[in-house]
Amino acid sequence: MSPLFGGFMERADDGLPFLLRYESVAHYRDGGVWILDRRKYPAVEEFVHCTDYRQVAKAIADMVTQSGGPWLAAALGMVSAAREAHRLSPDAAKQHLERAANELCQARPTTSANMKAHIQRVLKVAQNAINTGEDAEANTYAYVMENLEKRYRQSRTMAAFAVDLLPDEVTVLTQCYAETLIGFILLVAREKGKKISLICPETRPYLQGARLTASVAHDMGVPVTVITDNMPAYILSKGMAHVFISAADVVTLDGHVVNKIGTFQIALAAQHLAVPYYALGIPSVKHPDISTVEIEERSPEETVHALGIRTAKQGVKGYYPAFDITPPHLVSAVITPRGVFLPQDLKRYFED
Amino acid sequence: MSPLFGGFMERADDGLPFLLRYESVAHYRDGGVWILDRRKYPAVEEFVHCTDYRQVAKAIADMVTQSGGPWLAAALGMVSAAREAHRLSPDAAKQHLERAANELCQARPTTSANMKAHIQRVLKVAQNAINTGEDAEANTYAYVMENLEKRYRQSRTMAAFAVDLLPDEVTVLTQCYAETLIGFILLVAREKGKKISLICPETRPYLQGARLTASVAHDMGVPVTVITDNMPAYILSKGMAHVFISAADVVTLDGHVVNKIGTFQIALAAQHLAVPYYALGIPSVKHPDISTVEIEERSPEETVHALGIRTAKQGVKGYYPAFDITPPHLVSAVITPRGVFLPQDLKRYFED
Repeated sequence: MSPLFGGFMERADDGLPFLLRYESVAHYRDGGVWILDRRKYPAVEEFVHCTDYRQVAKAIADMVTQSGGPWLAAALGMVSAAREAHRLSPDAAKQHLERAANELCQARPTTSANMKAHIQRVLKVAQNAINTGEDAEANTYAYVMENLEKRYRQSRTMAAFAVDLLPDEVTVLTQCYAETLIGFILLVAREKGKKISLICPETRPYLQGARLTASVAHDMGVPVTVITDNMPAYILSKGMAHVFISAADVVTLDGHVVNKIGTFQIALAAQHLAVPYYALGIPSVKHPDISTVEIEERSPEETVHALGIRTAKQGVKGYYPAFDITPPHLVSAVITPRGVFLPQDLKRYFED
Repeated sequence: MSPLFGGFMERADDGLPFLLRYESVAHYRDGGVWILDRRKYPAVEEFVHCTDYRQVAKAIADMVTQSGGPWLAAALGMVSAAREAHRLSPDAAKQHLERAANELCQARPTTSANMKAHIQRVLKVAQNAINTGEDAEANTYAYVMENLEKRYRQSRTMAAFAVDLLPDEVTVLTQCYAETLIGFILLVAREKGKKISLICPETRPYLQGARLTASVAHDMGVPVTVITDNMPAYILSKGMAHVFISAADVVTLDGHVVNKIGTFQIALAAQHLAVPYYALGIPSVKHPDISTVEIEERSPEETVHALGIRTAKQGVKGYYPAFDITPPHLVSAVITPRGVFLPQDLKRYFED
């Protein structure tokens, strides 16, 4: 089978900076999945090349990509699994695909319910193709690309709801890397003539704020300032940012926002200083309340290293919870594809 | 004149780890001031050698030493200035000393009033020696050493007041590097049979928590865990630390605590989660209220670098306020050499 994907660098520009074009997050080419190594970007632009789905799962576990990245990388891992299944009997192929779906979803423990649901749908498409004797790889790839386009449209819709809430001149305090959401917020703000700038906490230990969010803003010509993670409360107390916006790895139906470690303490400071906090995310039916969410703990070594260099004496331990929980009373609003909701009122999201 | 100081490594052990023995902070030897380069410790144990007071002022401005370090380094800079003055006429010598005192105190803008007062007293001793024809260098050095002993005793007293407030088994959340205060808290806790452990936020951009506080604890055999600066609120929400303790660069008479950037947002989280926050410091008569305190802003480049490596894209700006302000309502108590005070009641400190 010929490569399903190629030549993305020649694609017409869609207003999105390098980091936000999906081919830069992860793409499928020559039967392999290529994932931008966000642990190194922007110092180095390097793609990790995965030749089977297991390598994709490992890349996700190793944080080659994070935030919204695994949503696409894992789905392309399923395309790879469909290709791997070509040489198997129909039953073995379906088992292989099921195993791939499980392993890709379990690569990290706090995987969002949205991603799990997506991978389950991709799995069904692949298994249907096997049942009907169609090309599982091609069908799966086409389905993933279709969902990707939907996701981009959805991100733009959510970003537009967020921009509607912003004053005409605004400095937004961010946290970690909100993926296409932050990119579209900047794009839509510009389209609507709003003057936006960002202050990005660096987001240790992986520095996604300094490396990813600040790069997106800078590449779009948006004024951006990086601070360290101990500065947000001071910044807010000086009136230097007017609103705090983050994405959410999980939004529970009872209004808790699970997001990158540090979100909680910025939300606390924001509330204390009367600065609104907007979380962008989709309420998860899989998480009726916060007790259903497991907080991933990653290798403690990460917190005693910076950019690969040890910061503390040998023998000093670290501790690395990857996410934290912001309770509903600290969230001004949850911005969803269906509009803006109070965190206490998310069940209404599913009424229609 | 023979070296005033030498051979400190052979000194009898006083229970203090390397980093807390004053000779490791800064010492005077062979007519020069040697300052431990805390920007590199513990990866490298290296002293910056200053051959005149101006080099000492530059070392302080460059953060070779910080927290309580400049208090001693600047005083030894005055000893150096006294030596430099030997070759001058009495009037020129006194002018030289005055210039030195000013430059050493102005090396960093948020210099504590206590340090300024100390340098003024050292200046008087040096000028008196010149008036009476005594050895200004020797007299000044003797005076500085005497004050240092007093300061150690004072730190121990304050630490003892702090330890009295702690339960028998306790994990203390720290911030930045509280110098001898944190060392004596660990020593006194051990003497009193209290089981203490520390959780240290790394304190970007200079990582004093990871590099200095964690080293002191580790060298004393105290269990210590380093976290990144976005984790304190989560740690407190999980009940993993029972009290937050910091030193203070300035305590104003109206109860505001000026300390390393990040203290404010930890104090906010502590109050929200009903964890006490104790600040160790001496109320400053020079600072009747917070409007008298200038917050130093350091080079923005520091926040887009970690351990000398650039974190963000070229062209992305940083911002680096070195301190923040914690208002009295977030401070459970101020621990002083004269006991424990409510932040709202500090004027009583001066009643006797």
